[in-house]
Amino acid sequence: MKIGVDYYPEQWERKYWREDADQMKEAGVRIVRMGEFAWSRLEPQEKQYSFEWLDEAVAIFAERQIQIILCTPTCTPPQWLFEKYPEVIQMDKTGRRVPIGIRGHRCLNHPLYRQKCKDIITKLATRYRDNAWVVGYQIDNELEANHCCCPVCEEKFREFLQKKYGRIENLNQAYGNTVWSGEYSSFSQIRPPFGEHPTWLNPSYMLDFHRYASESTAEYVAFQRELIHAIDEKALITTNTWFCENMPDCYEMFADLDFVSYDNYPATALPTDEETLYSHAFHLDFMRGIKQKNFWIMEQLSGNLGSWTPMSPALQPGMLKGYSLQAIAHGADTILHFRWRTAVSGAEMFWHGILDHSNVKGRRYREFCELCQTVNQLTDLENTVISNKVAILYSSEQEYAFKIQPQVEGMHYFTQLKAYHDAFTCFGVGVDLIDWMSDLSIYDVVVAPTIFVTNHEIEHNLRQFVENGGHLILTNRSGVKDANNLCIMAPLPTVFSDIAGITVKEYDPIGPVRQRLRLAEELSENGKQTAEASLWCDIIDAEDTKVLARYGENFYQGSAAITQNQYGGGRVYYIGTVLNRRGMLALIKYMIRESGIEYVEGLPLGVEHTVRENGKEKWTFLFNNTKETQAFSWKVVSQKGADEMHQEVLKPFEMRIWKE
Amino acid sequence: MKIGVDYYPEQWERKYWREDADQMKEAGVRIVRMGEFAWSRLEPQEKQYSFEWLDEAVAIFAERQIQIILCTPTCTPPQWLFEKYPEVIQMDKTGRRVPIGIRGHRCLNHPLYRQKCKDIITKLATRYRDNAWVVGYQIDNELEANHCCCPVCEEKFREFLQKKYGRIENLNQAYGNTVWSGEYSSFSQIRPPFGEHPTWLNPSYMLDFHRYASESTAEYVAFQRELIHAIDEKALITTNTWFCENMPDCYEMFADLDFVSYDNYPATALPTDEETLYSHAFHLDFMRGIKQKNFWIMEQLSGNLGSWTPMSPALQPGMLKGYSLQAIAHGADTILHFRWRTAVSGAEMFWHGILDHSNVKGRRYREFCELCQTVNQLTDLENTVISNKVAILYSSEQEYAFKIQPQVEGMHYFTQLKAYHDAFTCFGVGVDLIDWMSDLSIYDVVVAPTIFVTNHEIEHNLRQFVENGGHLILTNRSGVKDANNLCIMAPLPTVFSDIAGITVKEYDPIGPVRQRLRLAEELSENGKQTAEASLWCDIIDAEDTKVLARYGENFYQGSAAITQNQYGGGRVYYIGTVLNRRGMLALIKYMIRESGIEYVEGLPLGVEHTVRENGKEKWTFLFNNTKETQAFSWKVVSQKGADEMHQEVLKPFEMRIWKE
Amino acid sequence: MKIGVDYYPEQWERKYWREDADQMKEAGVRIVRMGEFAWSRLEPQEKQYSFEWLDEAVAIFAERQIQIILCTPTCTPPQWLFEKYPEVIQMDKTGRRVPIGIRGHRCLNHPLYRQKCKDIITKLATRYRDNAWVVGYQIDNELEANHCCCPVCEEKFREFLQKKYGRIENLNQAYGNTVWSGEYSSFSQIRPPFGEHPTWLNPSYMLDFHRYASESTAEYVAFQRELIHAIDEKALITTNTWFCENMPDCYEMFADLDFVSYDNYPATALPTDEETLYSHAFHLDFMRGIKQKNFWIMEQLSGNLGSWTPMSPALQPGMLKGYSLQAIAHGADTILHFRWRTAVSGAEMFWHGILDHSNVKGRRYREFCELCQTVNQLTDLENTVISNKVAILYSSEQEYAFKIQPQVEGMHYFTQLKAYHDAFTCFGVGVDLIDWMSDLSIYDVVVAPTIFVTNHEIEHNLRQFVENGGHLILTNRSGVKDANNLCIMAPLPTVFSDIAGITVKEYDPIGPVRQRLRLAEELSENGKQTAEASLWCDIIDAEDTKVLARYGENFYQGSAAITQNQYGGGRVYYIGTVLNRRGMLALIKYMIRESGIEYVEGLPLGVEHTVRENGKEKWTFLFNNTKETQAFSWKVVSQKGADEMHQEVLKPFEMRIWKE
Repeated sequence: MKIGVDYYPEQWERKYWREDADQMKEAGVRIVRMGEFAWSRLEPQEKQYSFEWLDEAVAIFAERQIQIILCTPTCTPPQWLFEKYPEVIQMDKTGRRVPIGIRGHRCLNHPLYRQKCKDIITKLATRYRDNAWVVGYQIDNELEANHCCCPVCEEKFREFLQKKYGRIENLNQAYGNTVWSGEYSSFSQIRPPFGEHPTWLNPSYMLDFHRYASESTAEYVAFQRELIHAIDEKALITTNTWFCENMPDCYEMFADLDFVSYDNYPATALPTDEETLYSHAFHLDFMRGIKQKNFWIMEQLSGNLGSWTPMSPALQPGMLKGYSLQAIAHGADTILHFRWRTAVSGAEMFWHGILDHSNVKGRRYREFCELCQTVNQLTDLENTVISNKVAILYSSEQEYAFKIQPQVEGMHYFTQLKAYHDAFTCFGVGVDLIDWMSDLSIYDVVVAPTIFVTNHEIEHNLRQFVENGGHLILTNRSGVKDANNLCIMAPLPTVFSDIAGITVKEYDPIGPVRQRLRLAEELSENGKQTAEASLWCDIIDAEDTKVLARYGENFYQGSAAITQNQYGGGRVYYIGTVLNRRGMLALIKYMIRESGIEYVEGLPLGVEHTVRENGKEKWTFLFNNTKETQAFSWKVVSQKGADEMHQEVLKPFEMRIWKE
Repeated sequence: MKIGVDYYPEQWERKYWREDADQMKEAGVRIVRMGEFAWSRLEPQEKQYSFEWLDEAVAIFAERQIQIILCTPTCTPPQWLFEKYPEVIQMDKTGRRVPIGIRGHRCLNHPLYRQKCKDIITKLATRYRDNAWVVGYQIDNELEANHCCCPVCEEKFREFLQKKYGRIENLNQAYGNTVWSGEYSSFSQIRPPFGEHPTWLNPSYMLDFHRYASESTAEYVAFQRELIHAIDEKALITTNTWFCENMPDCYEMFADLDFVSYDNYPATALPTDEETLYSHAFHLDFMRGIKQKNFWIMEQLSGNLGSWTPMSPALQPGMLKGYSLQAIAHGADTILHFRWRTAVSGAEMFWHGILDHSNVKGRRYREFCELCQTVNQLTDLENTVISNKVAILYSSEQEYAFKIQPQVEGMHYFTQLKAYHDAFTCFGVGVDLIDWMSDLSIYDVVVAPTIFVTNHEIEHNLRQFVENGGHLILTNRSGVKDANNLCIMAPLPTVFSDIAGITVKEYDPIGPVRQRLRLAEELSENGKQTAEASLWCDIIDAEDTKVLARYGENFYQGSAAITQNQYGGGRVYYIGTVLNRRGMLALIKYMIRESGIEYVEGLPLGVEHTVRENGKEKWTFLFNNTKETQAFSWKVVSQKGADEMHQEVLKPFEMRIWKE
Repeated sequence: MKIGVDYYPEQWERKYWREDADQMKEAGVRIVRMGEFAWSRLEPQEKQYSFEWLDEAVAIFAERQIQIILCTPTCTPPQWLFEKYPEVIQMDKTGRRVPIGIRGHRCLNHPLYRQKCKDIITKLATRYRDNAWVVGYQIDNELEANHCCCPVCEEKFREFLQKKYGRIENLNQAYGNTVWSGEYSSFSQIRPPFGEHPTWLNPSYMLDFHRYASESTAEYVAFQRELIHAIDEKALITTNTWFCENMPDCYEMFADLDFVSYDNYPATALPTDEETLYSHAFHLDFMRGIKQKNFWIMEQLSGNLGSWTPMSPALQPGMLKGYSLQAIAHGADTILHFRWRTAVSGAEMFWHGILDHSNVKGRRYREFCELCQTVNQLTDLENTVISNKVAILYSSEQEYAFKIQPQVEGMHYFTQLKAYHDAFTCFGVGVDLIDWMSDLSIYDVVVAPTIFVTNHEIEHNLRQFVENGGHLILTNRSGVKDANNLCIMAPLPTVFSDIAGITVKEYDPIGPVRQRLRLAEELSENGKQTAEASLWCDIIDAEDTKVLARYGENFYQGSAAITQNQYGGGRVYYIGTVLNRRGMLALIKYMIRESGIEYVEGLPLGVEHTVRENGKEKWTFLFNNTKETQAFSWKVVSQKGADEMHQEVLKPFEMRIWKE
């Protein structure tokens, strides 16, 4: 358990360095990250290196027994590089080189750029490999899937396709290219998806482009990792990821890295609507799930956000500390706060750090000190892990496929996942968010939302999971496509029909219109047997399958909307529509009880319950994720019966941690 | 009367062809359309043709006595063509070649492209000219006015202007180019309208560009028609049109074609607001009006829409059949449903056909069978036509002119036409939507909304129509411009002032603000003498002219808003503002009675009444265009007095047809 | 005092010229502006000049004793120029030449364009220098800061930077370029800000680009002024400015011009919300403040606006005259109405003049005649000036800086200025809007809103003003940056902390969320002690400083929001938040009384009180800026006590003027 900060010595006069390090030490900081954007300082002219200043900065922290993560500065090549080699600048979807002066605007694939990366990384890793305080490296910064459309990348994309399909005829068949005369007679005709209307392009081709773009970034990460690893075998190596427009497949990107690290910036403006979901916890669970082990926060919220967008509201008291502890409760082992002091120059100057521009120790600094103190006392937590019985399957394939072909206004892939995550969280049930290709045998309940694009492996895995006694949740828009993103010619959910015990006769994409549902008795609460749905209605042919909810309106009034089917030793739920929160809670409560997993009774909305353990001891975390004080009684309910009742009062954003 | 489907053999494995054709036959299909996008299959490599598969598909349908429409596949040139001849790719308003991979993205004017079109069309027409089951050809697909800005088109545009104006001085004068130093000293200075702000460009120049763009597409259609006609004199030739952003002048485009065909996709989400207008009927009447004769539907709604946009709601029961019969009621003689089975590949895969991806016969299939049965019994309807006494004048000139210079926020050309069409429809009065240059002598009432751009011919035609006893409706924004799109220096409505018997002192473009009107007693209903208007207020100097409504607010309170003038043997109404629906109904009811035309009393909102006849017999159609069951009593009222009262109950989207 | 019109003889057949001039004469017109866009008529082919028509037009007006302002026609180079020298076309932020055919689309810096300007201006000024009726010249038209990104401008920008910084190291330091490896190793690496996301670029660099762009336009104006001045020493020289997207620094641009002229188009759609501010008066005061002397209106509202946007509502009766007199009340000495007759061709044809396209004398014409009559009787007003005790400081630096870095959603620089201007206007207190670098010694109260970017001079000036007894109003977002646009490392408001007597502990950018304030007793009205604020909350450490308002909500409830500090002989108010109108009025009323300046009691919302004087006599203006008749009693209150009460009734847009 370590709290640290991100620090940019190159941005401050030397006179601040020792003073800053002393204050960090005093606050309780045990690790810093440096060098992320410092290429122009490390190599001011081509092949003229200047590392002395970084040596000094490293030494200052080392003297204070503060560990150091160094970064490969490759996200921001210096101006001389762009001037001399304009061909390494990214090309956008209009076919133009993007304007530089910002960051990240280089073609990851260009051989010239790769050579420059190799030079600077080799210098960096060689210089610090023997420094015991330099414990690891961050590769680049907040990488996205590589959507560069330059000639080099165009050729890479063709190579990707040629390798995958061999002959152009195979590709034409895989894409169904007879539509709109889309058949290629040569690989040379294939280009990246230029233009502003990707929804007009062939979805099979588009899915392959996304796969290529993701693989391209993963390959770039592997390239850097190998460079560093060859020089410094013991160094920890990671890259800091985030939720971005063009997400790479993180499972692939982190495959050979030592751990996942994440840039965690919960929004400081709180929702006022009860329907809004627990997205911070979701994001953290997602990060833990990438490698199914504990992770780092490489950048953690420390002040008002803003810079290219106007500023967000100030952090409420408790937020800085609370959100950091929340990350720990979800599996973070090390958290670096972004950043020590707010930048006084550059476009990011209103993305606030712990200290304001004034350099005066303020409210957030004091809260940060408290946080360090708390965390530095949690030494027992080292080596604890989170073991959950419920998993939600995430799949880059689905994310890409839904971006290519939005199914109905308002339905988004991540929102579907969040809705299920939220419902289990409301009952204090921990959830793993994992790759859809993961081993499912350790789970009791698996939620597989909208498995739109399928393949034989997922079909096999889910069937086996159920056969072995698991409870599986499937939803609408499952089984629609094969691995080529072609529609499967069979009644929905096609390859999942037999395990779900149903077929879909027809569907009604209702969008924002509300549809009333009648719930089966098992799902009713206080005699209330209705719920609301929206967005999508599968009209289900349930025949011999148990029906948990039926539609209350429209021409399919009375048709099954939610079903439950025994299959092998297990059970498959099929949710043919999108429930509102209250309906979802009723449904998930029923499912939890049926599956016999442990849950918590009495949690108010917005209070999270999580558990870390090490086989011997167990730490329970209760976090108030709201700006109201929450007083409540709660207990853990399991098949062995209910625990005793606990009384709890939590201030806004307060975390209670105790060991059993 | 024929019902058919659009079929894409190239998209399905051969094994499906016979099975599909058998099922179509069984359902009652009598015609199919094929080949629309199949260029890459017909000419996989340059000059290497492959027609055997199409021969087989044609034979399969011919064997089953199903007629065939073949399409020229020119909308989607194959990839090899774009690779080899990139100069045939369209150029957009930024001066860049548009991204390909979609459809339609070729320059209609490029000589190289034209040669390729000629080659493939010649092959196609030659091959099937002797096949009796191949009854005709569709040219290309959903053409728009040609807005390509490539050097070839730039030159074509200059030629168009040179031909029209002869000398550059004439053009400068016609455009009023002294404004902003816009004078050209040479035709070579004229370019297409590049850039994103066409409203900043000279409106006279812009109108000529639209005229050129429309003519350019019409000339392309003529080029294809002549090619086919020269080979197969007896073949029916058409092109399928639609309501698109860049509408060509359909009167010009269809001039030499055998009939109009239209792609008819009524929205499946029904309006909830009573003010929303009857647009499906409007669109159908528009299509019938292009050649003032019956037409075809080449693509008819058959399932949920969606693909580049998210999906729309499912079709309500009755919609598939009802909308098809509605088209017949408005003059369609043949209707092809798009499409037999939903595509499983390509960007259009969620634009649903009669059969879903599953290939299971479902609800919509059953409704389609019912439709076929109904229509196949309507043999008597052959050769019936629609004869109306009311015409609304449409003019491409106005459509272009208002796009170039929107007059006030919220006022759109088509909406003005629809409002009048809607009001007559509410009283069961059939309306022809016709070209403004048409012969008007067969009509009793002519509505000429917003004749913004005028010319001597329209001025003459309208005057003569009124002199001969016709009732003419004129509106605000009439007589503003001459044929060069220059403002006329006379009090509005300028060239129409004498027939309208008024002048406009001033106008107030009020936009969305509401303005109260006081109606003359003749227009009052149940003593109610007010109505609401918005968007535009002409302040009318009425003097000796009868006033039907006056403004109730603002500084022109009490001024005339709507007037009525006897002229020659006829009458001219001038509507200086934009009425809400209730006001419009009051006004049109009065006008109908005054003109003595036949109308229907008792129609509920949303029920349409239409008539087809053949001189001897008369078919009456009553269509419930709502999702509620409608029970009502109605009668036809004419100068000869009222018919007897009929009782009617119509289910949602139900059509009642009977012969008298 | 002169009323005139803008006239375009080149747009009308010669037959209209005399008739138009006669009617102008009759209406009371004493000055016309001509030639603004007539380059193609004056030089139809390169170096072939044609001035005879202008000679004739000038003679027609001279004969009628109507003065003439001629314009350099450089805003619209002829088509032959663009065809022959395409390199003079502006380049936009995508690196492409902009589409021509509109106006203003030439690179102000290109040597070829400059030569062409020189040629035509020399011809023009030489031809008319001896004509006594040609009294002056307008340079170009509605210039913006020069954002052209062509290679010539790119080089100019580099020269600007090289001149400013000498060595690249200095620039790197001034910009804090170590962030994101932004360091340049050579000036050649610097380019204009290409791309659509300027908020991602270094704000120090961006501020310099704005400074350069403004200077570039000012230099172009100076270039033209010198050309004219060298030929015609006595001619009045100006340029017509407006509020545009890319405002140049007007203080710099008008430095050597004889007077400011402004294009004044108040919106004709009146606000319905009481919170909406008096922006017309603000704009006029801004224009008077540029040179701190009287100014001209070169284009004044005369009819419905519209052309590239849909049309606005008609002018209410009284507006044409009233807004013209309002301009006089705020310091305009000459007003030219745009335009005599509405254009019948070109893109601007719905930007209405006094006469409509019809050329019929209508309501607006009659009102214009009344206006001329009124103004021609105000001969005594000549040489009167406006002397105010309150100044609001405007700074181009702030405007640019806030555009580069918007601070919070909804907070805009001009809106902040307008809010203070509005509050003083509500109390009949005249306000000068002046450059922040002006001499402040003549004022009692200075409002310095959001001095975000500071420098030593402003710091010194404001301190001295307060020391000498002035009352200064400072606000949130002051003292944030140094002159390089780098954040200052000190507690806010940094360089102003000592005079304000406070520091800001922290800030909360709350955006549209409302925050309740508790006001000190001094600010309460009828016992009401609350007000509302929004957008931004500085949490103030006030200690020994008087607190005028405290926050009523959130975690900083009870903290100071508004303070008052005695410093030297004067006082500094610090407003840490953004008040709603009612709160602002309470605050400003208190401040006015405390400062002892004269104000007016009894003005209804929307009635403006202004004063012009010449040392001996004083003219008072009362203007009803609403569409309701206003009846009210009012009196002037000064330290000498209150005047007697006056009774007043003003019709909509009526102006009462009287001399004391």
